Amino acid sequence: MTTSAGTRKGEHVRIGFIGLGVMGTPMALNLLEAGHRLTVHRVKERSQVLVERGAAAAASAKEVAAASDVVVLMLPDTPDVEHVLTGDGGVLSGLAPGSLVIDMSSISPVATRDLAQRVREAGSGYVDAPVSGGEAGAQQATLTIFVGGAAADVDRAMPLLRAMGRTITHMGEVGAGQATKVVNQVIVGLTIEAVAEGLALAEASGLDLATVREALSGGFATSRILELHGQRMVEGAFEPGFRMRLHRKDLGLALAAAEHYGSDVPATRAVVSQMEDAIARGWDDLDHSALFKVLTERSG
Amino acid sequence: MTTSAGTRKGEHVRIGFIGLGVMGTPMALNLLEAGHRLTVHRVKERSQVLVERGAAAAASAKEVAAASDVVVLMLPDTPDVEHVLTGDGGVLSGLAPGSLVIDMSSISPVATRDLAQRVREAGSGYVDAPVSGGEAGAQQATLTIFVGGAAADVDRAMPLLRAMGRTITHMGEVGAGQATKVVNQVIVGLTIEAVAEGLALAEASGLDLATVREALSGGFATSRILELHGQRMVEGAFEPGFRMRLHRKDLGLALAAAEHYGSDVPATRAVVSQMEDAIARGWDDLDHSALFKVLTERSG
Repeated sequence: MTTSAGTRKGEHVRIGFIGLGVMGTPMALNLLEAGHRLTVHRVKERSQVLVERGAAAAASAKEVAAASDVVVLMLPDTPDVEHVLTGDGGVLSGLAPGSLVIDMSSISPVATRDLAQRVREAGSGYVDAPVSGGEAGAQQATLTIFVGGAAADVDRAMPLLRAMGRTITHMGEVGAGQATKVVNQVIVGLTIEAVAEGLALAEASGLDLATVREALSGGFATSRILELHGQRMVEGAFEPGFRMRLHRKDLGLALAAAEHYGSDVPATRAVVSQMEDAIARGWDDLDHSALFKVLTERSG
Repeated sequence: MTTSAGTRKGEHVRIGFIGLGVMGTPMALNLLEAGHRLTVHRVKERSQVLVERGAAAAASAKEVAAASDVVVLMLPDTPDVEHVLTGDGGVLSGLAPGSLVIDMSSISPVATRDLAQRVREAGSGYVDAPVSGGEAGAQQATLTIFVGGAAADVDRAMPLLRAMGRTITHMGEVGAGQATKVVNQVIVGLTIEAVAEGLALAEASGLDLATVREALSGGFATSRILELHGQRMVEGAFEPGFRMRLHRKDLGLALAAAEHYGSDVPATRAVVSQMEDAIARGWDDLDHSALFKVLTERSG
């Protein structure tokens, strides 16, 4: 497939963007501000700004696809992506051959390979490009993006990804982006637990948390998470941020991948159990740094 | 106690240094090079350099103490410190009232409070000042040091600590330095496990480890450990560094402290179990980043 409704530098692309949430809205805005033509649907109050700045509103995912050469997805979970792509009135029912789907949601690597197969059979390309960096990264176009796909498809996606992110790495074939995101979420989740268990023990030992966090910075314990999430724990400030339930979902993908490949993840399993405890206590919409709260606020 | 065999800036102190291992030897050398008078004992090949540069060699811990105003300890474990301080021919049997003991070993915070009590009853001061930063930090005098003790004792110790370290924090009363070191080891151990479980899953998923490590750097997964220990895992380079069995010892202190204070450390317990697996497989003297090896090399 060499037809490419251009994504060379400076060229403007007809982009459909589906999934206008906390992350998707600022990401779509960055594409719009890079000069691309945007079609969206399900515009709510948060995403009204896109229409005000020139995005077209379509009535369905099918219509979004029909109006676009590249369709970007930024949805909550695997079933959402499956439904939007393959359901009645979904993207595949409107997509012209030679188009490109870029899925920036964080979903199952295994399901990703199946979906990519469906899209390819319809004559279009597929790239998985999940992100890390949160709302601030989405707003400032500084997201870290893990990319999976065939080289030609990735080349085509790259100029668009550059409008949304800063550190963009092609990890391998379709699914490799999602597999890397799963690895990222394992490391982030466990590092938060590391800081949470350490600071909870510090608090129990009668140490001053702010002094401990400061004293540890500069040594081997130094991490972005000690800096940012550690500060949240010191202050007891757990408004999100990245929600506990979404990280729990990502670690579900990690446990599935670990089982699939026979890889051992004993501490990750302990973190999942802590997250389930948090969710059972109604803290599903708190920031994931509330793992500290699970350790320090004993139940009943 | 206001008598202070001076540690004002520029003043030279009679220091006894006990524990001339991989860490202790370069630390003692830094004190010597700062112009202090040093007495040591149990000089081996590694520490011969100290005598060559002017340190006096004594026959026992008692003689070291008798020749010194400040005695610095850098020993492997709690029983070693107890023996050197309180045993026959130990420090307490030679120490003149008005002296100062600085224990830079990593030992039990609870035992530390008992030992400090014994030293105080003998009319001297006690400071616990465990370190982080490894052999390189000891050599370059860039150690992170966590200090516990009464303000006057800590003031007296501070100029000597500055000759050995860079980030030096007074954490609270006697034992607070050791308690902070325990917290540090929990966070470091769990962060290594975080990177190990992530990279092991990456390897199982068929991703290229070097690319994954690079791709994750810059996002929330960023840590000193992803940078340094992650590189060891990518290369399979597990010569120490910091030995598995010593980190296991430190986490034993963490489990004891957690039990003592009723603090929950579920993922730390999972890491201890992994470390015990490593030790059972004969990897006790490998670097602690060999936690990756435990996950990726299944036993027969």
